[in-house]
Amino acid sequence: MPTASASGSSTVRVRYCECDPMGVAHHASYIPWLEIGRTDLLRETGLSYKTLEEQGFFLVIVRLDVKYRRPVRYDDIVEIRTNWIGGSRIKIEHTYEVVVTRRENARETLPLTAAVGATTLACVNREGRPMELPDWLVSR
Amino acid sequence: MPTASASGSSTVRVRYCECDPMGVAHHASYIPWLEIGRTDLLRETGLSYKTLEEQGFFLVIVRLDVKYRRPVRYDDIVEIRTNWIGGSRIKIEHTYEVVVTRRENARETLPLTAAVGATTLACVNREGRPMELPDWLVSR
Amino acid sequence: MPTASASGSSTVRVRYCECDPMGVAHHASYIPWLEIGRTDLLRETGLSYKTLEEQGFFLVIVRLDVKYRRPVRYDDIVEIRTNWIGGSRIKIEHTYEVVVTRRENARETLPLTAAVGATTLACVNREGRPMELPDWLVSR
Amino acid sequence: MPTASASGSSTVRVRYCECDPMGVAHHASYIPWLEIGRTDLLRETGLSYKTLEEQGFFLVIVRLDVKYRRPVRYDDIVEIRTNWIGGSRIKIEHTYEVVVTRRENARETLPLTAAVGATTLACVNREGRPMELPDWLVSR
Repeated sequence: MPTASASGSSTVRVRYCECDPMGVAHHASYIPWLEIGRTDLLRETGLSYKTLEEQGFFLVIVRLDVKYRRPVRYDDIVEIRTNWIGGSRIKIEHTYEVVVTRRENARETLPLTAAVGATTLACVNREGRPMELPDWLVSR
Repeated sequence: MPTASASGSSTVRVRYCECDPMGVAHHASYIPWLEIGRTDLLRETGLSYKTLEEQGFFLVIVRLDVKYRRPVRYDDIVEIRTNWIGGSRIKIEHTYEVVVTRRENARETLPLTAAVGATTLACVNREGRPMELPDWLVSR
Repeated sequence: MPTASASGSSTVRVRYCECDPMGVAHHASYIPWLEIGRTDLLRETGLSYKTLEEQGFFLVIVRLDVKYRRPVRYDDIVEIRTNWIGGSRIKIEHTYEVVVTRRENARETLPLTAAVGATTLACVNREGRPMELPDWLVSR
Repeated sequence: MPTASASGSSTVRVRYCECDPMGVAHHASYIPWLEIGRTDLLRETGLSYKTLEEQGFFLVIVRLDVKYRRPVRYDDIVEIRTNWIGGSRIKIEHTYEVVVTRRENARETLPLTAAVGATTLACVNREGRPMELPDWLVSR
């Protein structure tokens, strides 16, 4: 079960290649940021996702929801605030807030919530069959 | 208003770079496929998104929901079935079905629904301010 | 050894997410197109890259050269002309021409060579150790 | 003209979505890292690329060469060592070294040079026509 401390923060600088002809981050670019958020959070619990895979546990995404509120711009510093909000023996639920914390020559008041999101992960084995999460992860 | 014919089909072959260490398409790779689906559908109405932008109408995504059901593999032929399900003077709603239609040496019965999704687009002007969709698009 | 017929053609439509704030395809977007070019060419020889991997042969890129001559735009139809120009028992050499063949409202005369490139692939086994290419591929 | 100090270092952690079915970073993933390297270096000279664009100067890539020597793995910490090696009134030349500096459970001795690269940038205006670089940038 997630504890009150199951939240974390990650930071990325928006890459040029992540932006589209409107001059803002393409909506698909946010998806890897959410992944960074939840893997950083997992790493803080003491185990990297890389090691989890080496132990035979694979986390696959089964649901993704994002609400885009304001554009993120090239070169912005973006903070991903990730919350591990629950789950079960086979699923993990996260929510996210994508916040612009620094923007050169900003005309907006910062920080600025650019998007919010939620994902559900399921645990599968190397062959893709559902399996239970390791005990320590469920009971943390 | 969308008519009964407001649905379409697009096809992509899954790229190697769209797949991840699990050997399946990364969940972020689906997002550009949905975009291909809805821009192909718009093109069929008689106007490309490219021209729409040149006329000063920009469509930005405000909501994205995807449910991932089964993995998509490298080199699969994937069909994106897109439906224009409604909207308003400033918004357009789409739903999607991502279907694996061809897979070399497939052990599964095809076609296979790999994911379903929904998006909401909002119309903005070049400066990112909300604006009404062009009449012909709303009343089609 | 490659024969005179060892060349092929692939076609992609430029995706919105492949374009950057300059409104043209980002230079990194071309790299997957080259990969499409050479895997399509391999498929024409009778074996897909997917099957090659299943047989334990992995092709990794060891050298990539691209010269960018003219911008490629969103929604352009781009042809990748790929040539299998040689190699050895452990390497394969390709050259590429990236050609804009269709552009809505084009002011330029088409077709237009947007870029040329060259790659060297090396054959490795599942553990990443160099290994010889399968005979049929070397002697084709 | 570049001075002896025209070199810099940037760091990225390899994203899951940047890796391919071989379990290593896809070769196209390196290209945005080089871009991070040179934009970080430009920022250190006192002006961000973002501001340069706002002043009407756009840098487009005209040549890209990469030699891939060893695989980069998911979750690796990668340092991009960038050198501004010369150029002219309209071009800028960079070289790069992509170095794995940290790898969980590494069996290799680190740091490890994974790739070396070189790029040439040309300066163009908003319409894509060649233009001279700003004086301060050429004479720095």
